[in-house]
Amino acid sequence: MTVFWAERAVVGGQVLASVRIEEHGGVITSVEEGDREADAVVLLGLVLPGFANGHSHLFHRALRGRTHGGGGTFWTWREEMYRAAAALDPDSYRELATAVFAEMVLAGYTVVGEFHYLHHQPGGSPYATPTAMEDAVVEAASVAGIRLTLLDTLYLAGGTGSALLSEQRRFSDGSIAAWVARRDAVVFGPLARSGAAIHSVRAVPAVLLQEAATLSRDRPLHAHVSEQPAENDEAIAAHGATPTELLAASHVLGPNFTAVHGTHLTERDIQLLADSHSTICFCPSTERDLADGIGPAIALRDAGATLSLGSDQNAIVDPFEELRGLEMDERLDSGQRGRFTPMELLEAATSAGYHSLGWDGGCLQAGAVCDLVAVSLSTPRTAGARPEQAWFAATASDVTDVIVGGEVRVRDGHHLLGDVGALLSAAIERLNL
Amino acid sequence: MTVFWAERAVVGGQVLASVRIEEHGGVITSVEEGDREADAVVLLGLVLPGFANGHSHLFHRALRGRTHGGGGTFWTWREEMYRAAAALDPDSYRELATAVFAEMVLAGYTVVGEFHYLHHQPGGSPYATPTAMEDAVVEAASVAGIRLTLLDTLYLAGGTGSALLSEQRRFSDGSIAAWVARRDAVVFGPLARSGAAIHSVRAVPAVLLQEAATLSRDRPLHAHVSEQPAENDEAIAAHGATPTELLAASHVLGPNFTAVHGTHLTERDIQLLADSHSTICFCPSTERDLADGIGPAIALRDAGATLSLGSDQNAIVDPFEELRGLEMDERLDSGQRGRFTPMELLEAATSAGYHSLGWDGGCLQAGAVCDLVAVSLSTPRTAGARPEQAWFAATASDVTDVIVGGEVRVRDGHHLLGDVGALLSAAIERLNL
Repeated sequence: MTVFWAERAVVGGQVLASVRIEEHGGVITSVEEGDREADAVVLLGLVLPGFANGHSHLFHRALRGRTHGGGGTFWTWREEMYRAAAALDPDSYRELATAVFAEMVLAGYTVVGEFHYLHHQPGGSPYATPTAMEDAVVEAASVAGIRLTLLDTLYLAGGTGSALLSEQRRFSDGSIAAWVARRDAVVFGPLARSGAAIHSVRAVPAVLLQEAATLSRDRPLHAHVSEQPAENDEAIAAHGATPTELLAASHVLGPNFTAVHGTHLTERDIQLLADSHSTICFCPSTERDLADGIGPAIALRDAGATLSLGSDQNAIVDPFEELRGLEMDERLDSGQRGRFTPMELLEAATSAGYHSLGWDGGCLQAGAVCDLVAVSLSTPRTAGARPEQAWFAATASDVTDVIVGGEVRVRDGHHLLGDVGALLSAAIERLNL
Repeated sequence: MTVFWAERAVVGGQVLASVRIEEHGGVITSVEEGDREADAVVLLGLVLPGFANGHSHLFHRALRGRTHGGGGTFWTWREEMYRAAAALDPDSYRELATAVFAEMVLAGYTVVGEFHYLHHQPGGSPYATPTAMEDAVVEAASVAGIRLTLLDTLYLAGGTGSALLSEQRRFSDGSIAAWVARRDAVVFGPLARSGAAIHSVRAVPAVLLQEAATLSRDRPLHAHVSEQPAENDEAIAAHGATPTELLAASHVLGPNFTAVHGTHLTERDIQLLADSHSTICFCPSTERDLADGIGPAIALRDAGATLSLGSDQNAIVDPFEELRGLEMDERLDSGQRGRFTPMELLEAATSAGYHSLGWDGGCLQAGAVCDLVAVSLSTPRTAGARPEQAWFAATASDVTDVIVGGEVRVRDGHHLLGDVGALLSAAIERLNL
């Protein structure tokens, strides 16, 4: 059992002062206003529930600051991304994953949904240990101290009706049965769990969508949906349906389903997602960087859908930047301020993401996992902000302490694992991109 | 004379390794590749020219993290901003300015254009020392160690054909003659100089625009232009001309002129700005926050106009965020990546801003003022980035050293003035907002 004492904390949608948080076995057992006790772990500033990174491709981190020289589109960027994918093996993937997950924890992310499709050797043959790449991700999360939902991805086709490109071969298990067999052979520790993903309606033939969903009812199921207009055009040409309509007709949507991006949705798509109690995971820093466009966040909220947030390509790893992005892009689009309330944005960044990733957490209450983030309110960025709006001022650099599963992972701005910049430099240098 | 040695530096649009920079009297006297000398000031990572903050209202910093609770528009935000303006006197303004300018230096800004209109007592009467508020800004810049262009602002009307609101009275000198007299009575040190501003075509009657410009030919002249559609509508209704057309007809445009924002411009406006060799100062973090919209940056560039960048309301003080904002908002708008080259973005953030503010600087070459910024390439954010694109990865938190006028102001991430967060907290708390 550990007792944490927070100078201030967000509890039940409000900022309270002097909050005692008791933890047992990684789960919060009580949250109450109370004086600082002698043996409590003291958390100064403002304590928030840990942030959920609802959508990550960890290896894209290796491309940060490297893809801006030549113009291009989402599709030319994808070629560079495939080159990075080709450079990884289980050892280098583990090293990179450890560094990237450590960067996430340092930034205040306490759980990550890793949308993982680097399953096999570059040619497509399994490794000697068929789960070698999955094991690398699971081990990295454990070492870096982040909670993990491994969104093990089904990827069978190169496009609607197209064979796999040679660089996509390692993404494919060849069949749903082989995907399920490999996926269910992965061993998880207490801070990690199994989830599933359909890469997209491009990469999984329409006739297989329903079976993939049926075999994933007991866990979180994610899919990329309508990130780019071309993806919609292709689905409509092939199936006479938008990607969301196709997923709905295949019984993929539902409370365990998360549509990632949802940038280019029709009104009907929005209603289908809301009515099925699906989550939509926006990735604002990536959607800017990849020129995807501004998704219909307010229309989704108003239809009753749940929004979460992710860092996706990890060009930026900063949960505050993502939640501000959700709001700021809406402001650019609408000409109105305050489209979401501060508390709605915090919930998208925390509890909605925990739900989407299959964990009871992202809030400070008994029964939730004990994942906490302390933010200083006296840095050059946060000084002067009201605590109940401080996440409009803060950045990842203002995170001082991070607790995952009741254990301190970051203290005074330092990850207990060591120098995260050095870990990242070594892991990326090794890839010789 | 000081010799700086940079591990890497951006010189003439390229990243060079091992660069010797010699300074005399605050001006660069030579830049050449060369070995590290025993008595050189060592700057590790990547050395960039100092960043220019082309447009600041320093006192808006007091509103950071306080204006997001109630929805609203630019115009309701303006009411909150006027309340902050009303709270300031020369002492509290100096204290706040010192802290905000120190925050800017810490973030890598080495020059600021302060668009200053808090001239008089709240009722509109001059202070006993008529330049008390200007003196406060000049002294604060000197203490914080930032180069300053005081854009002393002409503000005469509450709107097109409207009298001043009571909360606007302190902004007004009552006449152009009184504005010039006060403006020219301000005493500047070596790191500060006089500039001028026409607040907007709302706040200065059209018949007076030409005289204001004529009296400001010898210095930088700035104006807010077309930040909001309502501003255009008002000008067209009153004058049958857009704000830019009105400024052009009044001979305000020209090489010493900077149009701030330029968010809602017509094709003709764009051509007028480009043909007159005016600068357009975008403020992406503010234009998001205030729901202004996305300005026509690429159209301006393609017409031959010069773009600079500013932090405006200082909701964010991070030059990297502004330059990324310029590019990312364009990507959102166009569906294309790489709209500006990395070097074009760096120039908008440095040399274009120096030019707009009347200084020969923002580049590493003999004759330029010696304002330098060193950025670490081994932080959790920058690790792995290519040096020639590192400003896509860095944030203000990655700035290690800042030199202004040849003098070290920030070393190893610490402002020599002390704890900037504490300075900000004290200055903002004093205002009792």
